[in-house]
Amino acid sequence: MIYLDNAATTLKKPDSVYAAVLEAMRTLGNSARGVHAQALSAARTVYETREKIAAFFGCAEASHVMFTQNATQALNTALFGLFLPGDHVITTDLEHNSVLRPLYRLSREQGVRLDFVPADRNGNIDDADFERLLRPETKAIVTTHASNLTGNLLDISAVGKFALDHGLLYIVDASQTAGSFPIDMQKQNFSVLCFTGHKGLMGPQGTGGLCVGEGVKIRPFMVGGTGVHSYSETHPDKYPEALEAGTLNAHGLAGLSAAVDFINETGIGDIHRYETALMRRFHKGISSVSGVTVYGDFSGDRAPIVALNINDLDSSEAADILSQDFDIAVRAGAHCAPRMHRALGTESRGAVRFSLGWFNTMEEIDAAIDAVRSIAEK
Amino acid sequence: MIYLDNAATTLKKPDSVYAAVLEAMRTLGNSARGVHAQALSAARTVYETREKIAAFFGCAEASHVMFTQNATQALNTALFGLFLPGDHVITTDLEHNSVLRPLYRLSREQGVRLDFVPADRNGNIDDADFERLLRPETKAIVTTHASNLTGNLLDISAVGKFALDHGLLYIVDASQTAGSFPIDMQKQNFSVLCFTGHKGLMGPQGTGGLCVGEGVKIRPFMVGGTGVHSYSETHPDKYPEALEAGTLNAHGLAGLSAAVDFINETGIGDIHRYETALMRRFHKGISSVSGVTVYGDFSGDRAPIVALNINDLDSSEAADILSQDFDIAVRAGAHCAPRMHRALGTESRGAVRFSLGWFNTMEEIDAAIDAVRSIAEK
Repeated sequence: MIYLDNAATTLKKPDSVYAAVLEAMRTLGNSARGVHAQALSAARTVYETREKIAAFFGCAEASHVMFTQNATQALNTALFGLFLPGDHVITTDLEHNSVLRPLYRLSREQGVRLDFVPADRNGNIDDADFERLLRPETKAIVTTHASNLTGNLLDISAVGKFALDHGLLYIVDASQTAGSFPIDMQKQNFSVLCFTGHKGLMGPQGTGGLCVGEGVKIRPFMVGGTGVHSYSETHPDKYPEALEAGTLNAHGLAGLSAAVDFINETGIGDIHRYETALMRRFHKGISSVSGVTVYGDFSGDRAPIVALNINDLDSSEAADILSQDFDIAVRAGAHCAPRMHRALGTESRGAVRFSLGWFNTMEEIDAAIDAVRSIAEK
Repeated sequence: MIYLDNAATTLKKPDSVYAAVLEAMRTLGNSARGVHAQALSAARTVYETREKIAAFFGCAEASHVMFTQNATQALNTALFGLFLPGDHVITTDLEHNSVLRPLYRLSREQGVRLDFVPADRNGNIDDADFERLLRPETKAIVTTHASNLTGNLLDISAVGKFALDHGLLYIVDASQTAGSFPIDMQKQNFSVLCFTGHKGLMGPQGTGGLCVGEGVKIRPFMVGGTGVHSYSETHPDKYPEALEAGTLNAHGLAGLSAAVDFINETGIGDIHRYETALMRRFHKGISSVSGVTVYGDFSGDRAPIVALNINDLDSSEAADILSQDFDIAVRAGAHCAPRMHRALGTESRGAVRFSLGWFNTMEEIDAAIDAVRSIAEK
């Protein structure tokens, strides 16, 4: 089996991740819920993971790293906790439903006003549109780092600079890039960085979180027990407790911690170069195949994703053939990115997404190219 | 080490749980995010876990079982998704902050009106108080199944019957009893059952969920990608997608599934009897020790929890001694149950909670009794 659906979840994880989760399940108590050895081990595991994630993403304080079940929960937490009626928010056509649906809901129920930076047929935006859409009541910009459909990058450093210059919050969805691209939220001027643990970071499912910049105040989303200030009727407003409630997934976080160690030891630069090489080889290979339509911009740096369609096949049909005849796992259909599909003109047939990762090999890429060619020539 | 903090999290899990999580991490793709073998395996794992949980708790439909990170998220989802301004809700002094804080927030921000069935010095309530507090605008009753502090049970079947007779919703927090007590939400007339996976169910951390009865409509709490209806601006309103967003923790759910199998094979009746025997032995042993104050009612069926204080020691001090001198892990202090502490008069010193589980032995109980005696006699 050739697994090329790493943008949905990385299937293979470093062996140290499996070992860490197993060890955690055998030894950890409940973090922040006691002073005995097992509870303290859990608390230490969680805190060390906060420290590693903070260092990894350039977050100034470990206590400003908060853990959630996934990036969607991190984005819900950030977006519902930051905006108030009358706020204006600028976002883009590249966004995933995990950004769009909270914003639409804020617009519908809270009177938050939205504007979208449009994408062209290549899935690119024009950075000048942020300036064009700016209003006096603009509070924030929310963007993904890379399109989960095309792999096109946004220039998040430039957007961060623009946000800084105009006194705006900048919330970044790094679901598709965390672990594959160096990120430094202080240098790049992000107010909030949302990430998932189970994609490029190569950690377990059930992990993710948000890193919050200095002075950025997010109201609690979930409320409940935190192990501190039990007698207050309101949830604590101090990070990290403010944005966490109930028992944390310390078992999963132990795995995420090991995954970050693996990436640091391997070198994120090397990971990025290797994943880029896989993606370029695949793109080059399928570009010469007649009948293949590729989406997105391949002129610069990008995430290791190639979305395409083959002849007039429905994308789901193509994915089925890849799975059944070639044992190649990809994702087809709509990719929870409706505005992007509209921009690309793939609203009705969707697209076949090949997403590559650290544990893929050049041989697998060549086999995937051959498979695409074989389907196209049939 | 003797681990007696099972009400915070069960430390030891069945071996099959470790194996299932490991296998899941090695083989599963992203549930509901593709049609290739690995994505389908993940979807199958999640669906089978829904089916097992539905059967386990007497939920009529597997699709009405929704998974969350923990019971707190399940409770937030249920409570914020059910109530509207003007609704009146009856709850009790036994509740954990995971119930109290969402309700206080609804009261503060949404005008939901709350009444509390008071607890006496033994931590008991009078069921007649539900009738006394009933108003024409009463929409729901929210209660725990057992106090996480004293282990006292509520008669949830009687409350369920009362709710049914008066056309009220009944939301039950089974955090402390799921896996240790037979529960049948249809027979017992619960509208919503919230549970956590990592306590009595003996599954991994990062798992939990809610089971929703027929005709009970909960608005989405988190919104985002679900793998279906990508083009809608609103989150799907059909269960289970309505109350789930983003990637599920299929790795953890595989472990939860194995844990439910273990409980079914062992027999929940046998588990309940054994945990009760541990608790009765411990209670009997420490009851004769001079200087020990025990909280709660031991006259009937109850959760395997014994809360106490020793002489005039602060509860944290006692727990420290138990940990350091006897290698016994318990929890002290406030237990996220502020109203219960007030009822018991333990607001300032807290209480030392011994919570027992399936993997404890009678020898461990005897050692714990000896330790309590030794501290009391010092």
